[in-house]
Amino acid sequence: MELYLIRHGIAALRENYAKDEERPLTDKGRQKTAKVAKQLHARGLRFDLILTSPLVRARETATILQDAGLASHVEEFAALAPDGNIATWLGWLEQRWQQEARDKSLALVGHQPDLGNWAETFVWGEAQEKLVLKKAGIIGINIPDTQSPIGQSELFLLSSPKWLA
Amino acid sequence: MELYLIRHGIAALRENYAKDEERPLTDKGRQKTAKVAKQLHARGLRFDLILTSPLVRARETATILQDAGLASHVEEFAALAPDGNIATWLGWLEQRWQQEARDKSLALVGHQPDLGNWAETFVWGEAQEKLVLKKAGIIGINIPDTQSPIGQSELFLLSSPKWLA
Repeated sequence: MELYLIRHGIAALRENYAKDEERPLTDKGRQKTAKVAKQLHARGLRFDLILTSPLVRARETATILQDAGLASHVEEFAALAPDGNIATWLGWLEQRWQQEARDKSLALVGHQPDLGNWAETFVWGEAQEKLVLKKAGIIGINIPDTQSPIGQSELFLLSSPKWLA
Repeated sequence: MELYLIRHGIAALRENYAKDEERPLTDKGRQKTAKVAKQLHARGLRFDLILTSPLVRARETATILQDAGLASHVEEFAALAPDGNIATWLGWLEQRWQQEARDKSLALVGHQPDLGNWAETFVWGEAQEKLVLKKAGIIGINIPDTQSPIGQSELFLLSSPKWLA
């Protein structure tokens, strides 16, 4: 199955919000994210499901992807918040998704450095923070259908608004 | 500096050519490669130099990139042929290019699995063949200006005609 890791768009500055999790996308962030979403849709990408971090800037990004027609279903997933635990997501994958997921496409919307670290862990077995994932950028990975993705996956896409919007 | 690794476009079948190195791009290969080149140019990409494998399908790809305005200089480089030796290229980089290459952009046109293996070696220190680089696809890497790139580089782009053309 295909797994896409998408970083939220440009968000409002931290100093203007009491709680980090409440920071929304800026106008520019919304525009760039919508352009990326439109391009991805035009190139035929569709997700069977989007899981998003519960933080406002991630939820807004997921909604933009949904509104562009990339997916009909969006669900919040607590472990996609900053410093979330990859093991929680792996458990979810194994129990609910992977068995029936051949030829399916799943998107996770979240934060750096977590998404890059997860991608490196899936592909090379460990995180070295060597992937540059820009805001509203996307990573695409082929993960195996019947075993753990850790160190068993392939990277086929790493791109950013510069190349996509 | 930025290093781009670009795989040649779709080439004629091996059975129709006595020598593998003489296989040219097909019409479809030329068209797809030209579309990718046009998009890369529109997004502001420019190379200070393109080094190409001496094989026909690579030289033709390099010429298409040059004709799209991506670079004014193209040179053949024997070590970019299949199974070429990365050490030869590293020696060239150190002697001729890296000293004066801050803010410069260099493209290598060549073959799989070599290009993917080189990219993994630059970024993670060893090749595991986990990067999917399609024909006319591109890898973008930030390599350090003053030391060996091996295991010291960052990956910022991995894309293919599906996402670029």
